[in-house]
Amino acid sequence: MSLRVSDRRLVLAALGALPVLPGLLKPVALWAQTSQAGSPLASWNDGPAKQAILEFVRATTDQSSKDFVPVEHRIATFDQDGTLWVEHPVYGQMLYCLDRVPALVAQKPALKNVEPFKTVLSSNRAAIAKLPIPALEKIIVATLTGMTTEEFNAEVAKWLASAKDPRWKRPYTDLVYQPMLEVLTYLRANGYRTFIVTGFGQDFVRVYSQKVYGIPPEHVVGSALAVKYGYDKDGNPVLVKEPKLMLNDNNAGKPEGIHLMIGDRPHAAFGNSTGDQQMLEYVGAGAGKRLAMLVLHDDADREYAYGPALHLPDTKIGTFTQALYDEAKKKGWNVISMKSDWKRIFPFN
Amino acid sequence: MSLRVSDRRLVLAALGALPVLPGLLKPVALWAQTSQAGSPLASWNDGPAKQAILEFVRATTDQSSKDFVPVEHRIATFDQDGTLWVEHPVYGQMLYCLDRVPALVAQKPALKNVEPFKTVLSSNRAAIAKLPIPALEKIIVATLTGMTTEEFNAEVAKWLASAKDPRWKRPYTDLVYQPMLEVLTYLRANGYRTFIVTGFGQDFVRVYSQKVYGIPPEHVVGSALAVKYGYDKDGNPVLVKEPKLMLNDNNAGKPEGIHLMIGDRPHAAFGNSTGDQQMLEYVGAGAGKRLAMLVLHDDADREYAYGPALHLPDTKIGTFTQALYDEAKKKGWNVISMKSDWKRIFPFN
Repeated sequence: MSLRVSDRRLVLAALGALPVLPGLLKPVALWAQTSQAGSPLASWNDGPAKQAILEFVRATTDQSSKDFVPVEHRIATFDQDGTLWVEHPVYGQMLYCLDRVPALVAQKPALKNVEPFKTVLSSNRAAIAKLPIPALEKIIVATLTGMTTEEFNAEVAKWLASAKDPRWKRPYTDLVYQPMLEVLTYLRANGYRTFIVTGFGQDFVRVYSQKVYGIPPEHVVGSALAVKYGYDKDGNPVLVKEPKLMLNDNNAGKPEGIHLMIGDRPHAAFGNSTGDQQMLEYVGAGAGKRLAMLVLHDDADREYAYGPALHLPDTKIGTFTQALYDEAKKKGWNVISMKSDWKRIFPFN
Repeated sequence: MSLRVSDRRLVLAALGALPVLPGLLKPVALWAQTSQAGSPLASWNDGPAKQAILEFVRATTDQSSKDFVPVEHRIATFDQDGTLWVEHPVYGQMLYCLDRVPALVAQKPALKNVEPFKTVLSSNRAAIAKLPIPALEKIIVATLTGMTTEEFNAEVAKWLASAKDPRWKRPYTDLVYQPMLEVLTYLRANGYRTFIVTGFGQDFVRVYSQKVYGIPPEHVVGSALAVKYGYDKDGNPVLVKEPKLMLNDNNAGKPEGIHLMIGDRPHAAFGNSTGDQQMLEYVGAGAGKRLAMLVLHDDADREYAYGPALHLPDTKIGTFTQALYDEAKKKGWNVISMKSDWKRIFPFN
C-alpha cells in the first residue's frame, strides 16, 4: 500500500525543532470568520490569480453567461496538504502515526524490539528521518488499524488538541491558509459544494474538516482503508479499521476517487503537487469554463519555499516539479504565488 | 462479484407481461411537488408509522429536546429498491442490463452463441427467468463495464426515457412511492441530508437521483465497480468502468459503505429487506433518538404483497423474512404497512 507516502517529501531531515517566528498570539480566526469579511478574497492581492477566481465565479453563476453552471453541478475540489494547510517538513497525519507508536507498543510489547518501531521509540530524530518508505507504511498500517472507527476518531481528536507545530508552536489545525479559507467560503456563498480530495486518510481529515474548513465529513474524499462491520462483546455493532487499502487517492486515484465519492466532474480544482496533476487535467478538460489552480510554495519567510522556480539545491523536497509547472503554463492552469498573491498566510497573523 | 444479485428474488418468473391496471394517466408529480403540499406526510394515514417520523423530527430538531441533533449530524439513509421505488418482479437495473445485451452483441458478435447472452437474445422469457445467479453476474459485468463513465451515463439516460414497466406502462422512474418522497422532502426541510444507500450500482442511480428524488449524485452510496483513469485517442482524460468490484453495498456492506462515503453514523434509516438489516442495526444502536423503519409490501392491489405476514406460498420472493420481522419487533424498529399506512402509492394516482 502507498497512501501518500510514495512521495519522497514525506519525512525529511527537519524532524528536529525549527526556528520559531514571533507569530502574534491573538485568537485564531477560522473559516467561519472569513464569511464576515466585507469583500471576498480580502487576503488576496490584486493580480491574475485573484482575478481568475473572481472571473470563474462570475462566468459560472451569472445566468446570462454562456458558461453558466446550474447549481446542482457546482462542485469544487481541494487537495489538502500544501494546498489548504502546511505540509512541510512532515505531513500532519504522518506525525500522528509516529506519535501513536508508544501507545501501540504499550498494547503490543513484542513490537518494542522490532523495526521500525524500535527506531521510532529511540527518539533519535536523525534515524527516524531516514526511515525508508516501506518502514513508514508499516507504521501507518500498525497505527491506523485494529480499532473501531469511534476509537480512532477519539484518538485523533485528542492528538489534535495537544500536538503542536515546532516552528509556530500552534496546533496543526491553526496552520491553514487564510486566503484558501476565503476561497472556500466565497465558492460556497456562490452555490458551490466544496470537497477536500486528499492523498492522506479521509478518516483523519474528517475529524476536523467541519470545524476547520466548514466541510462536512461526506465532502472529504481521501485514501481509505477498509472497515469491517461486526459486533463488540456486548453485541453492539462496530466498524473496525482493517489493514486493506480501498482507495489510494493520489495521482490517477484522485479523479477515480472523485468519481466514486462525488459522481460528477468538478468545475474547479486546487492542488500543489504532481499528486494533483490528474485531478487538474480531469477538471480542466471538462466542457465550458473550468478553474484549475496550483499553489506554489515560494515564500521562505512567511511559510516555506520549495517550488520549482526557486532552484532549490534539493528540488526533490517539493513534488511541484518543473515539469508540472510547465504543464500548468501550457494548459492555462493558474499558479498561485504565496509570496506575491497572498497578503497574509494564516488566520493568526 | 455479487452486486445485489445474490438475493434470490432478482429475476423471477414474472418477466412476462403482467395485467395492466387502469392507472390514471395524469402528469407525474415528482419530489419537487411534495414540498408544495400544505402539511408534511400528506399521503400518510395517521398511525404509529407516521407518528414515529413526526416525533423523531420533533425530538431531534427542537433545541430544548434531550435528543437534539446539531444540523451537521442530521443524516438519513434510504435503501432504494423496494423502499423508494418498485423492485418487483425485477430490479430496474437488472432490466437495463438485459436490455443492453443486443447492443453488446452488436459490438462483440462472438458473444451471439455464448451463454448466457444467447438465451437473453432468444427473447424466451421463461428461459431468461431461469438464468442462474452466476449467469446474471456475467451479464451485469459485460453490460456495465468497458465504456467511459460519460458513455454509460448517456446510455442509462436514453434507456430510462424509453423503457416502461409492463404493469403500469410508465417509465420506471415514475414508480416511486409518493409517501417516501414526502419523507425525503420533510427531512430535508428539517436540516437532514438524505442519502440513498443501495445494493445496486451507484452509477446507475446517480443518473436520475437529482431529478427523481432531489438527491445529488454525491449523496448516492451504492455498489461500485472501479473506474480507471486514462486518455482517449485525442489525449482527453477519461474514466473507464472496469470489471472490478470496489464496494458491495449490501448487508454488512451498507454500514461499511456509509462509513466510506459519508463518515458519520446516520440518525435515521429506511429499508425493506434483509439486505438493509445491518444498516438498521448500526443506525438504531447509536446514542440518542434514532429512527429505523422497514417498508412492508402487503398491498397486492395497489402494488405487490410479498411480506412475511402474508404467508405467501413462496416466501422466498421477498427477503423481508419472518426473522427480519421478528428482529424489527424486538428492537423497536417501525414497520410501515403499505396497505394501511399509505393513502396513495405513486405520484400519478
